[in-house]
Amino acid sequence: MWAYEKRLQYPINIKKKDLRMAKLLVTQYGGSNGELAAALRYLNQRYTMPDDRGKALLTDIGTEELAHVEMISTMIYQLMRDATIDEIKKAGLDSHYVEHKKSLFPTDANGVPFTATYFASTGDPISDLTEDIAAEEKARAVYENLIDLTDDPDILGPLLWLRQREVVHFNRFNELLNEYKKMNF
Amino acid sequence: MWAYEKRLQYPINIKKKDLRMAKLLVTQYGGSNGELAAALRYLNQRYTMPDDRGKALLTDIGTEELAHVEMISTMIYQLMRDATIDEIKKAGLDSHYVEHKKSLFPTDANGVPFTATYFASTGDPISDLTEDIAAEEKARAVYENLIDLTDDPDILGPLLWLRQREVVHFNRFNELLNEYKKMNF
Amino acid sequence: MWAYEKRLQYPINIKKKDLRMAKLLVTQYGGSNGELAAALRYLNQRYTMPDDRGKALLTDIGTEELAHVEMISTMIYQLMRDATIDEIKKAGLDSHYVEHKKSLFPTDANGVPFTATYFASTGDPISDLTEDIAAEEKARAVYENLIDLTDDPDILGPLLWLRQREVVHFNRFNELLNEYKKMNF
Amino acid sequence: MWAYEKRLQYPINIKKKDLRMAKLLVTQYGGSNGELAAALRYLNQRYTMPDDRGKALLTDIGTEELAHVEMISTMIYQLMRDATIDEIKKAGLDSHYVEHKKSLFPTDANGVPFTATYFASTGDPISDLTEDIAAEEKARAVYENLIDLTDDPDILGPLLWLRQREVVHFNRFNELLNEYKKMNF
Amino acid sequence: MWAYEKRLQYPINIKKKDLRMAKLLVTQYGGSNGELAAALRYLNQRYTMPDDRGKALLTDIGTEELAHVEMISTMIYQLMRDATIDEIKKAGLDSHYVEHKKSLFPTDANGVPFTATYFASTGDPISDLTEDIAAEEKARAVYENLIDLTDDPDILGPLLWLRQREVVHFNRFNELLNEYKKMNF
Amino acid sequence: MWAYEKRLQYPINIKKKDLRMAKLLVTQYGGSNGELAAALRYLNQRYTMPDDRGKALLTDIGTEELAHVEMISTMIYQLMRDATIDEIKKAGLDSHYVEHKKSLFPTDANGVPFTATYFASTGDPISDLTEDIAAEEKARAVYENLIDLTDDPDILGPLLWLRQREVVHFNRFNELLNEYKKMNF
Repeated sequence: MWAYEKRLQYPINIKKKDLRMAKLLVTQYGGSNGELAAALRYLNQRYTMPDDRGKALLTDIGTEELAHVEMISTMIYQLMRDATIDEIKKAGLDSHYVEHKKSLFPTDANGVPFTATYFASTGDPISDLTEDIAAEEKARAVYENLIDLTDDPDILGPLLWLRQREVVHFNRFNELLNEYKKMNF
Repeated sequence: MWAYEKRLQYPINIKKKDLRMAKLLVTQYGGSNGELAAALRYLNQRYTMPDDRGKALLTDIGTEELAHVEMISTMIYQLMRDATIDEIKKAGLDSHYVEHKKSLFPTDANGVPFTATYFASTGDPISDLTEDIAAEEKARAVYENLIDLTDDPDILGPLLWLRQREVVHFNRFNELLNEYKKMNF
Repeated sequence: MWAYEKRLQYPINIKKKDLRMAKLLVTQYGGSNGELAAALRYLNQRYTMPDDRGKALLTDIGTEELAHVEMISTMIYQLMRDATIDEIKKAGLDSHYVEHKKSLFPTDANGVPFTATYFASTGDPISDLTEDIAAEEKARAVYENLIDLTDDPDILGPLLWLRQREVVHFNRFNELLNEYKKMNF
Repeated sequence: MWAYEKRLQYPINIKKKDLRMAKLLVTQYGGSNGELAAALRYLNQRYTMPDDRGKALLTDIGTEELAHVEMISTMIYQLMRDATIDEIKKAGLDSHYVEHKKSLFPTDANGVPFTATYFASTGDPISDLTEDIAAEEKARAVYENLIDLTDDPDILGPLLWLRQREVVHFNRFNELLNEYKKMNF
Repeated sequence: MWAYEKRLQYPINIKKKDLRMAKLLVTQYGGSNGELAAALRYLNQRYTMPDDRGKALLTDIGTEELAHVEMISTMIYQLMRDATIDEIKKAGLDSHYVEHKKSLFPTDANGVPFTATYFASTGDPISDLTEDIAAEEKARAVYENLIDLTDDPDILGPLLWLRQREVVHFNRFNELLNEYKKMNF
Repeated sequence: MWAYEKRLQYPINIKKKDLRMAKLLVTQYGGSNGELAAALRYLNQRYTMPDDRGKALLTDIGTEELAHVEMISTMIYQLMRDATIDEIKKAGLDSHYVEHKKSLFPTDANGVPFTATYFASTGDPISDLTEDIAAEEKARAVYENLIDLTDDPDILGPLLWLRQREVVHFNRFNELLNEYKKMNF
C-alpha cells in the first residue's frame, strides 16, 4: 500500500500561463509513452519477477512514476488555472474546456483517452524488462520533444529533471536485465 | 508523492487455486467499475475541487484505491500462481496464458483492456462528486456479484472488506457533496 | 418500438454559420457525457428495473434523449451546411471534412469516436439509477461549458432548454432512487 | 423526435432459457454488424442525403432498426432472466454476470463494447448508400450464422423475420442508389 | 509471401512543405476509409473466398493497397521532412511532434489510432465483396475531399491516380460479386 | 511496393483440426505482441531511420513479418476449415462463428480487435530500435507460451521456426542499435 506525502517529488511553480504547452504536456500524463503507462506497467509486472530484487525494483520505480504523474498533472493544472475563456478559445483548448472545463483528463496530445494497450506484460522477465527499457527510452524521447517546444524555464526545469530520471531508470532496468540473462531466467 | 509500505491494506492469503475466480476478479482491477478506474478518477479530479477539504478527500480515497488495486492484484496472482498448464487449459484461461503467462493485465472479465473512458472529469465539483458516488455504488454492486460466485472464505474475506470500504467512501463523498450544494459551489 | 414524428422536440433555426461551435457541440452528440450515451444508457438499463414504474421512466427519458440527439445533430448540421472550403480550412474543420465532408459523426470534441464504455449497466437498480443521476449532472455541466463559449441566441436558446431538461431528468431519477431505497430494492 | 409505442415490432416470447444463445445474440445488439450500428449509421447519415426521399428513407429504416435493437434486447433478457447462478457459471456467462448481473450491455459476442468506428459517414450519398447496402448484407450474414446455431423455434422465428427485413432494406437502399447514380449525385 | 521492390507504385516528389496537408493525408494511411484498412481487409478476407479467382483477386488488390500505404506514407514524410519547429507549431502539428517527432503513425486526421474495427469479415463471400465495394467507394470519396483541399500539383498528381485505382478496384470487385451471385455462392 | 509470391515463407500443413489452438494462435495475428503489430511497426518507423542501412533493415524485417502474418493466418484457417457446427460449439468458438463464420479477423486471443496503440513510433532512432528489440522479445515469449499449449508437430514445426526468426531479428536490431549508439544518432 501507499502513503501520500503532501509534496511533489520536484517543485513545480509555473508563473506564466501557456495553454499550448498544457495541451502538449498531457501526453506525458495519458499518452502512449507517458508516466501513467509507465507506473501501471511496472506495478503490474512486478508480481512475476523471479526474485525479490526484481519485485522491489519494479515497485520502487512504479511508485516513483506515480509521483511523476502528479508532477505532470500539477504542471498542466498550473498552466491552465488562470486562463480566461477568450484565451482558451484562442489556444484551441475549447475542445478540452467543453468536456473538462479546467480539470485534467488522461489523454494523449490529440485528446485520445489513455488505454492499457499502451503497455504489455508477458510474464517472461527478460521480455518484460526489455519492454521496460524501451518504455524509458520512449519517455526520454518525448521529454526531448517537449523541451524543443518551450523556452519557459519554469517548464524546462521539471522536464529536464524528469528526462534525467528516465535515464536513471533505464540504467537500473538494464543492469537487472543483464543479471537475469546471466542467471538464465 | 507516495511512499510505498510493504504490506497490504488487508491481508490476502489464498490457499486454494481457483482459476475461474481469477478470471472474474480481474474486472475489479481493470474493468469499468474497478479499483484502477476509481483511483485514477479521484486522483485526476482532485485539482479542481473548490477547497482543501475536497482536494484532501479525493487524494485520500484515491490513494486508498491504489491499495485496493494492489489487493485485487495479489488475489489474482495467488489464485493463478501454482496452476499447471492443464489446469489453465481446463479453466479456459489459456487465452490469458498465451499473452501474459501468469502475469497480470488490467482488463475486464472478458479481457477488454482498461481505458480511461470508464470515468469522467467535468471540472464541476457537483458533477464530479456525483460521478464519484455513482462509481462507489457500481463497485459495490460488482463486489456483491463476485461474492455471489464463490464460497471460498479466503476470497470472501477480502471481498466483503472491500465492499464495505466502498460504502464508507460513498458516505464520505455524499457528505461533501451535500455541503458543497449548500455552499453553492 | 418507436414512431418517428417529423418535428424536433424544440425548434432549431441557426442563421449564422459557426464552425467552431459545430466542432464543440459534437461532444453532446458522441462524447462521453452526451445525449447518445444517455439515450443508450437508459434504454439499455430499463429491462432490469424492478418494477413497471422504473421500466417506464427509463424508456420515457431514453426516448426523449433520442430527440435530444436529433436536436444536437440538427444544430451541427445547420452550423456547417453553408460553409465554403476556405471557411472550413480556417476553422480547422478540415480534419472533419476529409473524412465526413459535411455529414455528421458521433465523436467527442477531439474527434474520438463514441464508445459504449462511456456508460455502465450493473443490473443493480440502486447503482444504475445513481449512474443515471451522475449522467444528468455531467450533461448539465457540459451544457454550461458550451453556453460559456457562445453568444449566438440561436444556439443559446436550445442549449438552455436542453440544460433545463437534464435538471428535470435528474429530479425524476432522484425521486425514483429515493423510493427504491425505501423499498430496499 | 420519436414516440414510444409499448409493443415490439415482432412478438418475442422465449420459453426456454438458453444462456449460450444469449451470449451470441448480443452481437446483433452491440457488435460490428448489429442493429445498433445500423440504426446509428442511418440516422447519422440522413442529414446529407441530397433530397427528401433519401432523408426519409434513412430516417424510416433507422427508426425501424431501433425497434430491432429492442427486439434483440428483449430476446437476450428473456434468455437470461430466470437463470440461476449455477446455470450462469456453467454457461460461461459469469464474466457477464460480474459486471452486469442480468442487465444488458451493447458488446459483440466476445464482450467488446460497441464503438462508432463500426460505421462510416462520408457525406457522399453514393458512398454512404453503398456502405448501407454492405451493412444490410453483413447483418443478413450474421443472422444466418445465428440461425445455424439454434433449433429453438422461439428464437428462430424472430431471427428469420429479422433476416428478412435486412433483405427488404437492402432492396430499398439499392433502388435509391441506382436512381442517385442516374441523377449523377 | 511478399518481395519488396525498391520503388513506389507511382512516383512521389513533393517539393513544397505543407504541414496542414500532412495532417489531413494521414487519414488515408490510418483512418477508417484508408489504405491500411483496405489492405488488411482484403488480405484477411481472401481465405474464405469460394474459388481461386476470388482468392487471387483479394490477394492482388490487397497487395496493391500495401503499395498505396507506402505512397501515402511517403507523401506525409516528404511534406514534414524539412519543417522547422516554428513551422510545426504554426501548423498545429506540435501534438504530432511531441509523440512522433517527424516519424509517421497510422491514425485518422484527428490523431485517433488505427483499429481493425474499421473493417469486417463475415466469411460470406457475397457480404464480404459488398463490404469491399463499399470500402472502395468510401476511399474514393475521401480522395475527392483531399483533392478539394489542395492546389499543389505534386500532391494532386498522386491523389488523382490513387482515386482512379479505387474506381478500378470497385469495378473488379463488382464484376466478381455479380458472377458469385449468378453462381449462388 | 511489394510483389506477391504464391508460396508461404515456411510450409504449413496442418492435418488435425484443433479449434482451441485456432482461438489462441490468433493473438500472433492481431494481438498486442503479434506479427501484424510487428510488420506495421517496422514499415512505419523506417522513414525516419538516420541512414540507408536502418531504412533497409526495417523494410526487410517488416516485409518478412507480413509473411509471418500470412503463415499464422494460414494456420488458423487450416485449423478451423473443416470444423462442423457442433465442434465449433464445443470448442467455444461460436462467438467467433456468429461474426466471422470461418473467416479470419485480427484480434487477440480474447477477441479484442487489433489497434495501432500496440506499437509506438517516436522518430528517435535509438528509442525506435529499442522498442523493436522489445517487440521481438515479446513475440518470442508469446511463441513459447503457444508451444507450451500444443503437442501437434504440424503446429509446433512452424511455431518453433517463427520463434527462431524473432531471435534472428532481435540480434539484427541489437547490432544496429549498438552502432547507432556509437555514432551518437
